[in-house]
Amino acid sequence: MDTPLPDYLTEVLDTCGGDDGGELAAYIPELAEADPDRLALALCMLDGVVYAVGDTDARFSIQSISKPFAYALALADHGLDAVVEKVGVEPSGEAFNEISLEVGSGRPFNPMINAGAITVHSLLDDERVRAGFSAFAGRDLEVDEEILGSELETADRNYAIAYMLRNHGVIDADPRAAVAGYVRQCSYLVGVEDLAVMAATLANGGVQPVTGERVVERWVARQALSVMTTCGMYDAAGDWFTSVGIPAKSGVSGGLIGALPGKGGFSAFSPRLDGHGNSVRGVQVFERLSSDMGMHVLETPPPARPPLREHASVPQACALDGTQEGSLYEIQGSVDFVAMEQLLRELDRDPPPEVGNVVLDLTHVHEVRDVGRRMLLEGARRLDLDGHHVSFVDPEGMLRAFSDDDPDGDGTIDVGDGTEVPVVRSR
Amino acid sequence: MDTPLPDYLTEVLDTCGGDDGGELAAYIPELAEADPDRLALALCMLDGVVYAVGDTDARFSIQSISKPFAYALALADHGLDAVVEKVGVEPSGEAFNEISLEVGSGRPFNPMINAGAITVHSLLDDERVRAGFSAFAGRDLEVDEEILGSELETADRNYAIAYMLRNHGVIDADPRAAVAGYVRQCSYLVGVEDLAVMAATLANGGVQPVTGERVVERWVARQALSVMTTCGMYDAAGDWFTSVGIPAKSGVSGGLIGALPGKGGFSAFSPRLDGHGNSVRGVQVFERLSSDMGMHVLETPPPARPPLREHASVPQACALDGTQEGSLYEIQGSVDFVAMEQLLRELDRDPPPEVGNVVLDLTHVHEVRDVGRRMLLEGARRLDLDGHHVSFVDPEGMLRAFSDDDPDGDGTIDVGDGTEVPVVRSR
Amino acid sequence: MDTPLPDYLTEVLDTCGGDDGGELAAYIPELAEADPDRLALALCMLDGVVYAVGDTDARFSIQSISKPFAYALALADHGLDAVVEKVGVEPSGEAFNEISLEVGSGRPFNPMINAGAITVHSLLDDERVRAGFSAFAGRDLEVDEEILGSELETADRNYAIAYMLRNHGVIDADPRAAVAGYVRQCSYLVGVEDLAVMAATLANGGVQPVTGERVVERWVARQALSVMTTCGMYDAAGDWFTSVGIPAKSGVSGGLIGALPGKGGFSAFSPRLDGHGNSVRGVQVFERLSSDMGMHVLETPPPARPPLREHASVPQACALDGTQEGSLYEIQGSVDFVAMEQLLRELDRDPPPEVGNVVLDLTHVHEVRDVGRRMLLEGARRLDLDGHHVSFVDPEGMLRAFSDDDPDGDGTIDVGDGTEVPVVRSR
Amino acid sequence: MDTPLPDYLTEVLDTCGGDDGGELAAYIPELAEADPDRLALALCMLDGVVYAVGDTDARFSIQSISKPFAYALALADHGLDAVVEKVGVEPSGEAFNEISLEVGSGRPFNPMINAGAITVHSLLDDERVRAGFSAFAGRDLEVDEEILGSELETADRNYAIAYMLRNHGVIDADPRAAVAGYVRQCSYLVGVEDLAVMAATLANGGVQPVTGERVVERWVARQALSVMTTCGMYDAAGDWFTSVGIPAKSGVSGGLIGALPGKGGFSAFSPRLDGHGNSVRGVQVFERLSSDMGMHVLETPPPARPPLREHASVPQACALDGTQEGSLYEIQGSVDFVAMEQLLRELDRDPPPEVGNVVLDLTHVHEVRDVGRRMLLEGARRLDLDGHHVSFVDPEGMLRAFSDDDPDGDGTIDVGDGTEVPVVRSR
Repeated sequence: MDTPLPDYLTEVLDTCGGDDGGELAAYIPELAEADPDRLALALCMLDGVVYAVGDTDARFSIQSISKPFAYALALADHGLDAVVEKVGVEPSGEAFNEISLEVGSGRPFNPMINAGAITVHSLLDDERVRAGFSAFAGRDLEVDEEILGSELETADRNYAIAYMLRNHGVIDADPRAAVAGYVRQCSYLVGVEDLAVMAATLANGGVQPVTGERVVERWVARQALSVMTTCGMYDAAGDWFTSVGIPAKSGVSGGLIGALPGKGGFSAFSPRLDGHGNSVRGVQVFERLSSDMGMHVLETPPPARPPLREHASVPQACALDGTQEGSLYEIQGSVDFVAMEQLLRELDRDPPPEVGNVVLDLTHVHEVRDVGRRMLLEGARRLDLDGHHVSFVDPEGMLRAFSDDDPDGDGTIDVGDGTEVPVVRSR
Repeated sequence: MDTPLPDYLTEVLDTCGGDDGGELAAYIPELAEADPDRLALALCMLDGVVYAVGDTDARFSIQSISKPFAYALALADHGLDAVVEKVGVEPSGEAFNEISLEVGSGRPFNPMINAGAITVHSLLDDERVRAGFSAFAGRDLEVDEEILGSELETADRNYAIAYMLRNHGVIDADPRAAVAGYVRQCSYLVGVEDLAVMAATLANGGVQPVTGERVVERWVARQALSVMTTCGMYDAAGDWFTSVGIPAKSGVSGGLIGALPGKGGFSAFSPRLDGHGNSVRGVQVFERLSSDMGMHVLETPPPARPPLREHASVPQACALDGTQEGSLYEIQGSVDFVAMEQLLRELDRDPPPEVGNVVLDLTHVHEVRDVGRRMLLEGARRLDLDGHHVSFVDPEGMLRAFSDDDPDGDGTIDVGDGTEVPVVRSR
Repeated sequence: MDTPLPDYLTEVLDTCGGDDGGELAAYIPELAEADPDRLALALCMLDGVVYAVGDTDARFSIQSISKPFAYALALADHGLDAVVEKVGVEPSGEAFNEISLEVGSGRPFNPMINAGAITVHSLLDDERVRAGFSAFAGRDLEVDEEILGSELETADRNYAIAYMLRNHGVIDADPRAAVAGYVRQCSYLVGVEDLAVMAATLANGGVQPVTGERVVERWVARQALSVMTTCGMYDAAGDWFTSVGIPAKSGVSGGLIGALPGKGGFSAFSPRLDGHGNSVRGVQVFERLSSDMGMHVLETPPPARPPLREHASVPQACALDGTQEGSLYEIQGSVDFVAMEQLLRELDRDPPPEVGNVVLDLTHVHEVRDVGRRMLLEGARRLDLDGHHVSFVDPEGMLRAFSDDDPDGDGTIDVGDGTEVPVVRSR
Repeated sequence: MDTPLPDYLTEVLDTCGGDDGGELAAYIPELAEADPDRLALALCMLDGVVYAVGDTDARFSIQSISKPFAYALALADHGLDAVVEKVGVEPSGEAFNEISLEVGSGRPFNPMINAGAITVHSLLDDERVRAGFSAFAGRDLEVDEEILGSELETADRNYAIAYMLRNHGVIDADPRAAVAGYVRQCSYLVGVEDLAVMAATLANGGVQPVTGERVVERWVARQALSVMTTCGMYDAAGDWFTSVGIPAKSGVSGGLIGALPGKGGFSAFSPRLDGHGNSVRGVQVFERLSSDMGMHVLETPPPARPPLREHASVPQACALDGTQEGSLYEIQGSVDFVAMEQLLRELDRDPPPEVGNVVLDLTHVHEVRDVGRRMLLEGARRLDLDGHHVSFVDPEGMLRAFSDDDPDGDGTIDVGDGTEVPVVRSR
């Protein structure tokens, strides 16, 4: 059987490819002379598989799509507070190349506008950017020196911004060097597969899904995605969020990325731009993907199954040695806040028979979130306090109770106040 | 066993209750004379359970928290296009009571600022608001006529806004009547439990979790949540989204709601306000909740289990009559885009033996999303095309293959191009 | 001989009458249905003579031209400080109907925009406006009730402004009443002759040149003219000042006034408006008048004659009784700062012979300004200190030394420190 | 007798010298270390006399006071249209160092803000500025290279502005060179006497009053003065114009100039600045001077004498040969629009006896303005048409009827349509 994904993506491209509206960016020859009909789309799953269709061999400069990745690198190197002190996180409601500095402080509104991006770049150096971007992409990226040269010739607005930033004490660096570095950052050549993988790294909490390298910490990825959500599409942020709902970033060369946390990274490429500077066909591709796939981050999922399987809690042989009866709770689905709230409520409403074995079986659990784990352990602690003999069955080690020394062996887990609860691989 | 939730929520209140910063809203006596120390918190799960701690009997006027609910009612009554034609969805980066009309059209930037809210209200009438709000809350809400009267006396800015709206042709109604209606909308008395339930209705895709009533369509709830995300916290939208990441709305009487799609509705109440007009302690409560519970909407979940259980695909007796061998695929977790992409890829990489039975067993499936269902059916269709005899096992009817007439009986499902695949309740 | 003035003015009208560019104001029927071809021009000299050509019998509503006159009345009634506390004097660089309130105070930028004009009006009452405007015009002006009614129906923007003003505490009055009064102020019917006379009253230091009535104090007229200079033509103030250079005000019905201090009042009327809301042909008329007549307020006059006539200071019989010789100084032209500086310098450089008569003869003096008078008296005092016997010859009483009781008789004047100097009518 | 001017100016200084409010400009050491107590005042009359009191030997950098003079040089070199195409004339209502470019065109609002001044400078070169400024001052001015160097080190905001200007195509030059040139322009060392003379050159219609050199044309001086009026005092333009009413410009080193057309040039120097960047004591000096001297440009002069002397028009021997009787009209005061309108009206109302001699005697005329001359000649032409023998008596050649070859001889003047009217030196 052939997986239908490539067929689907090709169909999306065909649907969107007919629109020849929009205009090529004209300010440098390299962009003005791009083939306006090129169109490509890629998708990187979080286990590292990449689908790509259309003009997948097209190479183009990354431009503003570099912004969230440079922001992530700066966060990683300097910490949240140091970066937020320099660059805010508020949407400015203005076009990308507005100066948009906060009154008084002169702090750029956010890292997705040029003023913020230049400031962010000033916290990095060229080699850090090259190495970092390459880590996000999983291959050595290279600068297109011709584009870099052309852009530097028409970088007056960016020079203006950089001088204004130094005027406000936001950057210390030589403004011309700051712009040169920033423009270099924008001149890395990429294709849609690179962009999809880079986006997927953010969607994957900072771990590059192909190489498996942790490029940035989880909080860094979330911060970058948050700012992409509110500021990534400039003055169309609200329109984008209501209709597409995927943290995204576009570039003037026609690229567009989207990163859906826990799901995957997306990218599109088509050089003709709309009035906001976003790729006309790229936007259509994303609208189609979001609509087809239900990928708006606020999309309400249908009600999940209850956290306890039907036959749970029936008294049965459930001691670890199989000899004693007790209550078995087979948990299913996600161990998250919502599920554990229900489980704990159920245990409150209909507690297990007083004094006896209680087995909490995670065999059918799908994922364990931090808050869910804490709540589950608290439940175990309370059951223990009530006099039960509690144990966990955790075939896949989701409770992180098994030591590295003895990964297969049985373990215990501290559920609070020093109470240790046994954990076994299987009933 | 007592569920630990109330203890946890009480502890959150205790932590945040010590801050007596901020100021009471002073423009009407009813707000200026509120007890500044009142503090309450509520949480409504999507199965209708409500937790509430603190001053849960405090009643206060809903104020700006009415905005997303009135917006939802207007969307429901008039459709998206008609409403968006009147009121935009872009953050304005300005305070709530700025006029903030788009240059040219005079269209208010978004429905969370007063100009947008007055325009939204003009699409409704008082009775619709009363009935709609009551449906969201699950009880008959009432206006505090004293607050209404006081507010009307100091509504000059709102009158100014309303006249400007009619000047731009955005509203047709008498501006004074429009303001009177809008102020009435803001004067409904609520408590934290009401607010939590109302928020939960949005988080639940429009279905009131206590009454089970569908108050608005799913798309309406998503649109309201989207606008809350980008515009709900005024000029602090970016800060809120990066740090808390829950679609939210605050009111000048000290209320604050958050709605996390598919998870629950939250509310807090504490009258002292910060410089943005948000409840000081309410914001702290939400920061604590978001951090503790990992409830930022962009929070990347940990990798889920693979969609196929380990022992899947082993040739075994798997025909419906148990007599023939074939390939069994036990699917687990969510049937969503990500999981189905993996499943289909696996079927592509390692297809079942040519010509034979293929059973797709959904017994361990946790939820089925639309896109996942479509992909799964497409997989079944392709397997059928490859010559396999495909069947589904769907104990809980998640594929919606069983007719109402025969809910327990076996059924078939059309997987495309007229191909019918049998579905049974169990192996 | 016929004076060529009417011929000249008619020729100006003919030159400008060919332009049919611009559009009628369309917001009320009375303006939209005006005859667009009407064109008139009037000129009022400060001795009360009025020239008027074209459609001089056309009556139209005064509209925004009422603003400087209402401002003058408010200044007269409440004093400068009280009015400036309410309304600033800074150009806003915005269109007339922008709200344009100062951040923080909410004070309107200036009295020539609607916000400022409504505030100014709130300092007056209807009867004061009626009586005051009639005094400026020299006849009883009347409101066009039909225009008033139409304007009130479309006054939403003004209502918005008025409510915002009360919101900021700038006005106390009921905003609807404030607008009603302001719109009434704008609905007085005038013709070009009325406007020319009204402008001339400001140009004449507040004295109505036809009736001779002092309508406002000199400082009030200067303040009104100053604000007309910087704010009278909205966002074209700089362009108007560089090219025309006459304090001016236009109205949406097509009227335009200019007031040149000490020279005269001008008016034009032609209903088609340019993009700034100024009469297209009215502006042309003023450009032509300013250019032809050299009437820019900064126009540098050619060097005047020296203040001392050639034969001055020759020793001659110049005692009052004609018997003694002395020094005669025949002063000519203006006794202003510049001339007196020269005279005093000359007396310093080439003083009269020690001890003797000094006659300062004002027979050929053209005007005496306050500062010039003070300097001349100081010179007399110093000559007296040097031992001279000083006397003035002042045939026309320009030094104001003759008492009302004895206007023809001889007098003395106190030149400082109690020194009295004789003044006679003639040598 | 000593002229009292120095005493008066000293008294003004003493009155204003007590205020030690305000702060030194701090952005470069040279300004921050200035002696804050220095105070000086100068006055240059249009015949070249200069009064100066206080710290008249203080030398300071000219700073923004250079702007109107550079503007005048650019106007002189390139013409009005070419300069206005680059830089507008509208007040921006913003501080001096705001970018303040017009939306769309990117044209700076006016030449008194830095953006406009840098653009103006780009139309000149260093040598032109040096020579031009020296011509205005009447001596070779020199740059303070230390100040220049310091300013260049802190010129980031100006660099930002210059790059933004090139970005908009407003300047073509290298932005760093443009700023370097502009800062050089601001670094010329001057004293109060220099500034008073420079201001006086503008007030004198472009002729340097000491050297007698015409530095710029009359229209250039008027344009520079007009822009100083509306834009010279930044966001305090309206306040300055209503209270002081003298075209003015201030600089950050503490200098302040005023230029009153036809009257003189003023300057003050005191380094402490108010919040607008204007010299605190300088502003006080000007308020005092304007108030004392009645020098507001809109100050209404008292009514002048009528243009005809009392005994005019009496039939008397008035033919050129003294043998024939006729009508003598002795004109006095200014031959300007107002006076000639009166004269022509008088001739209309009470014409000379039919057919006979008419002598128009200018012996007592004080000044002749262009428009007045044209009106007077038109009157003569009409009298000639009516059959009168018209002649002028013009002892000082004010009608410009005498040829250079024969300055003392009799002449004729063409009063229109080829009609020649005799002009004689004396009756």
